Amino acid sequence: MTSSEAREEAVLEAVRERRELVNDAIPEELPVQRPERLYEASRYLLDAGGKRLRPTVLLTTAEALADVEPLSADYHEFPTLHETTDAVDVMDAAVSVEVIQSFTLIHDDIMDDDDLRRGVPAVHREYDLETAILAGDTLYSKAFEIMLETGANPDRTVEALDVLATTCTKICEGQSLDVTFENRDDVMPEEYLEMVEQKTAVLYAASACLPAILLGADDETVDALYGYGLDIGRAFQIHDDVLDLTVPSEKLGKQRGSDLVENKQTLINVHAREQGIDVADLVDTDDVDAVTEAEIDDAVAELEEAGSIEYANEMARDLVDQGKARLEVLPENEPRRLLEDLADYLIERGY
Amino acid sequence: MTSSEAREEAVLEAVRERRELVNDAIPEELPVQRPERLYEASRYLLDAGGKRLRPTVLLTTAEALADVEPLSADYHEFPTLHETTDAVDVMDAAVSVEVIQSFTLIHDDIMDDDDLRRGVPAVHREYDLETAILAGDTLYSKAFEIMLETGANPDRTVEALDVLATTCTKICEGQSLDVTFENRDDVMPEEYLEMVEQKTAVLYAASACLPAILLGADDETVDALYGYGLDIGRAFQIHDDVLDLTVPSEKLGKQRGSDLVENKQTLINVHAREQGIDVADLVDTDDVDAVTEAEIDDAVAELEEAGSIEYANEMARDLVDQGKARLEVLPENEPRRLLEDLADYLIERGY
Repeated sequence: MTSSEAREEAVLEAVRERRELVNDAIPEELPVQRPERLYEASRYLLDAGGKRLRPTVLLTTAEALADVEPLSADYHEFPTLHETTDAVDVMDAAVSVEVIQSFTLIHDDIMDDDDLRRGVPAVHREYDLETAILAGDTLYSKAFEIMLETGANPDRTVEALDVLATTCTKICEGQSLDVTFENRDDVMPEEYLEMVEQKTAVLYAASACLPAILLGADDETVDALYGYGLDIGRAFQIHDDVLDLTVPSEKLGKQRGSDLVENKQTLINVHAREQGIDVADLVDTDDVDAVTEAEIDDAVAELEEAGSIEYANEMARDLVDQGKARLEVLPENEPRRLLEDLADYLIERGY
Repeated sequence: MTSSEAREEAVLEAVRERRELVNDAIPEELPVQRPERLYEASRYLLDAGGKRLRPTVLLTTAEALADVEPLSADYHEFPTLHETTDAVDVMDAAVSVEVIQSFTLIHDDIMDDDDLRRGVPAVHREYDLETAILAGDTLYSKAFEIMLETGANPDRTVEALDVLATTCTKICEGQSLDVTFENRDDVMPEEYLEMVEQKTAVLYAASACLPAILLGADDETVDALYGYGLDIGRAFQIHDDVLDLTVPSEKLGKQRGSDLVENKQTLINVHAREQGIDVADLVDTDDVDAVTEAEIDDAVAELEEAGSIEYANEMARDLVDQGKARLEVLPENEPRRLLEDLADYLIERGY
């Protein structure tokens, strides 16, 4: 095992350990109650899996701030920094963020009319459109209810809810931009990055800064951690776009190159267009089931030739390095190193 | 003009006056910004009209609590009761509640596949399904953002957000119950009232208690006002069900008796079924466009014979009287009398 492999294995282990705890907390915070069908639908995606990357960022940032050994403190009674209240339930904040993520997935799947998510039918397929809209709406308010229960000081709670609410608004704005981009062929890299920031990165940013807010860190720390989240969140999405082209379909769990076939905007396409490539013409078909591996290979070769994949990889790497540098506001400790390694993992992961 | 007519006219004038101010505040709190199409869709129903009954309840309750003459105090800098902060923007709270109402209408229209709302196309018809889902989601978080801006003390703001979040959860639960009721023929009056409480009345309850929370009233006052809102909100919905049967179609703006045709649960149907009437058979067709006035007349006559309409009217009257009695926690003043008259208006209005 190389040292890079060993670091990746350590990151995955840290994610796994926290995921178990998050998975235990979800049914406690979101029990299936009357009306049962609504709550079952609300829990459906949450129970179907997910890496819990955002909760992992949140919980690990709390540990770095409090300068404690990983997993040594109870997330439900987590020590604050010089606050009048002694302990805060940071797990509530972690669950809240994951619940928001789940709400957006349910509604996004309706909007994109996607059939599958996390290897199971999308909620509007497993249940119906009405129930899926309502399940998303229920998770939305539940996320706020759960964030209200951390036991943090009221001024800190108000700030945390402000972050949660503005994050949700930005996610909607980003999703809206993404939809309008589908009908445009002149999207600039800066516009793409703005869209990704709003649609994807802000929830990482919220995850990283929320423990700082709730535990009582100063504004500089809150801002730096927000920036870390924005950077790694954007890098995460850009790497996702690269994976769509470079990972075999069977490992990806969907057709390789589907973004190209469906003419989705990615940083790679946007760059290639700027290099004079007719991106819409890279693949002849717009039917994911009809495209051949050879067609995708040719398209990827052309994108590589244009330097577009390298451009995306470099952008992701720069963002991760920038994000890691922002962690200097944290004490030098093991959780901080884990946050650094987590950032690397987001752009080094194979799928 | 009888004294009852004079009182109704005074209520309508009070609603109109506050509606103007609410209509001025909405574009300030919810400006159309980038992405424009998303914000235009979010504003579409809000701009199409609406009586602003919930904001009127909220603003008038604030006036009763502060014991000021109607419209004499600036809603944007409203005097608090013995709080460390001098003034609170209760208009923010009023707009927040109206924004929540608008979000639920947009998503409800998708779920019910309704074409028209407030005389204009439903948002998913004027725009599209994706935009309508996203517009509702945007209003959802914006309502929380706006409620965070009142300037109330942090502990009061936390309590207000808690009310807002749990209210939204209950609205979802109520809507879910309503959907499941459509497939049942054994709904009991208590179940109907529970559904109406969650789907409709909780937002009136929130509107009535939020100024008490934000301005710093005691728990007893907050609870009494919440109860007032629950009572008048349920009465409002029951009266709506009666109007559906008794008001001419042209005045109603939709086919009279459409609830009967579509087999919707109302307190009237539920009562009639308990009296042994085959409610599903009252009208032969299930097509609103095919039903005749004579068929509706016959059905209404049968419901009157069974005492079901009188039962609903009495229930609404009892709830309004109960709600008005709860206002005893307020000082005796003109805004309090307006809240009493508003309660009467909700069940005396002709449409």
